[in-house]
Amino acid sequence: MGRRPFDLLNDALGREVLVQLKNGMQIRGTLQAFDAHMNVVLDDAEELEGTEVKRKLGKMLIRGDTIIFVSPSSVEVG
Amino acid sequence: MGRRPFDLLNDALGREVLVQLKNGMQIRGTLQAFDAHMNVVLDDAEELEGTEVKRKLGKMLIRGDTIIFVSPSSVEVG
Amino acid sequence: MGRRPFDLLNDALGREVLVQLKNGMQIRGTLQAFDAHMNVVLDDAEELEGTEVKRKLGKMLIRGDTIIFVSPSSVEVG
Amino acid sequence: MGRRPFDLLNDALGREVLVQLKNGMQIRGTLQAFDAHMNVVLDDAEELEGTEVKRKLGKMLIRGDTIIFVSPSSVEVG
Amino acid sequence: MGRRPFDLLNDALGREVLVQLKNGMQIRGTLQAFDAHMNVVLDDAEELEGTEVKRKLGKMLIRGDTIIFVSPSSVEVG
Amino acid sequence: MGRRPFDLLNDALGREVLVQLKNGMQIRGTLQAFDAHMNVVLDDAEELEGTEVKRKLGKMLIRGDTIIFVSPSSVEVG
Amino acid sequence: MGRRPFDLLNDALGREVLVQLKNGMQIRGTLQAFDAHMNVVLDDAEELEGTEVKRKLGKMLIRGDTIIFVSPSSVEVG
Repeated sequence: MGRRPFDLLNDALGREVLVQLKNGMQIRGTLQAFDAHMNVVLDDAEELEGTEVKRKLGKMLIRGDTIIFVSPSSVEVG
Repeated sequence: MGRRPFDLLNDALGREVLVQLKNGMQIRGTLQAFDAHMNVVLDDAEELEGTEVKRKLGKMLIRGDTIIFVSPSSVEVG
Repeated sequence: MGRRPFDLLNDALGREVLVQLKNGMQIRGTLQAFDAHMNVVLDDAEELEGTEVKRKLGKMLIRGDTIIFVSPSSVEVG
Repeated sequence: MGRRPFDLLNDALGREVLVQLKNGMQIRGTLQAFDAHMNVVLDDAEELEGTEVKRKLGKMLIRGDTIIFVSPSSVEVG
Repeated sequence: MGRRPFDLLNDALGREVLVQLKNGMQIRGTLQAFDAHMNVVLDDAEELEGTEVKRKLGKMLIRGDTIIFVSPSSVEVG
Repeated sequence: MGRRPFDLLNDALGREVLVQLKNGMQIRGTLQAFDAHMNVVLDDAEELEGTEVKRKLGKMLIRGDTIIFVSPSSVEVG
Repeated sequence: MGRRPFDLLNDALGREVLVQLKNGMQIRGTLQAFDAHMNVVLDDAEELEGTEVKRKLGKMLIRGDTIIFVSPSSVEVG
């Protein structure tokens, strides 16, 4: 309660996250770095189509202004 | 009257909110954190299709510039 | 003449306004708060389809950058 | 020559203008106020479809970043 | 070489320019004023469809962030 | 290595460049000027459709925020 | 862990990267320069369609705000 939204990203470093992009793409990978613009680096990244892997993308820098949400399902922020 | 819009988010911390996104998605979850850019963290989040749950998303950080509105139906701000 | 546009919002506090959004939605509700980004809080808000009520939304915070116009039909600003 | 674009809005205060919006809407009304973001207040505003009146909107605040152009046909700026 | 892009607008004051807008509209008119946001005022403006005049718009203020390009064909900037 | 991206524009002054715009248009012309917003002035500009010339545009100022890329194929930046 | 996202671009200078653009284009080339806006210069750039080369583009400056992601698959950032 009252924590800052980016604490979620800090707590998720080194863990798997799901990133939903504005163009409809969904990327799953291990969060390696982020900054104040929500630019994120993922490792072992994969593009998903529903629950299937569509394409392996390896390491990538995703521009923050293309992101809708980041969901690190097993991380506590509250 | 004359209160600030973000007071609504402050009053809604720890409560359930409905978030309408610019891409048409509707997310319902418990508001855990927000900042001045309207970035929000929800817990126990679910994507809705009309009144049905389409997908469980757990904890998530939603980027503020993708949000149309946040509606915490049972919270007083006036 | 020569007054500032946001005076219209100030004069409309506590009154019913119509808000047209960029995604085509029209929301009608009682204006409770606004800020310099045109973020607004409405109470007793309803989504309209033409002149019909499509959905009751209660209290809500609408992000300013999603708004096309705000029309408080019975308020004088001139 | 060499005058500033917003002089056109200043000269148009109290007169009828046509406002073309990015979503395709055309609004005609009496310019009551504007600011540096091109936010404008119109009175006796009407939505037009071609040369026909489609809807009467009364007084309204139009957000500047939704505007393509403002045309006060009978005002001199040069 | 090495001149600033807005010198083209300065040299075009009082002359006819073609303005291509992001929504596909093409406007031809006499450039009367501009500012650092590329907001421009045209006089005797006409909306074109291909090489035909579709609509006469008279004097108008075009918002800079809706412009793709301005082409004053007979003006030297180099 | 380690040079700044805009060095490419500086090196291309007076040479032919290809400019790809966000609306799908491709413009080829001689780069005459640019600024920090990536606003560019081209001379002898032509709109291309594939490898064909669709329209001659002469001198033009292209707004930087409409550009996807600028490609001066015969210029070294590395 | 805890490194900055742009470290990935720094580590990728002189190496091949894949750049995904918001308009759907995919560009592959050797990263030559970048800045804080994520503007990048690629050399020997090629537009891809799936895994096929669609068009050779040579040297190019890509505007940062058109980029979704940059993926230098063989570079370590963690």
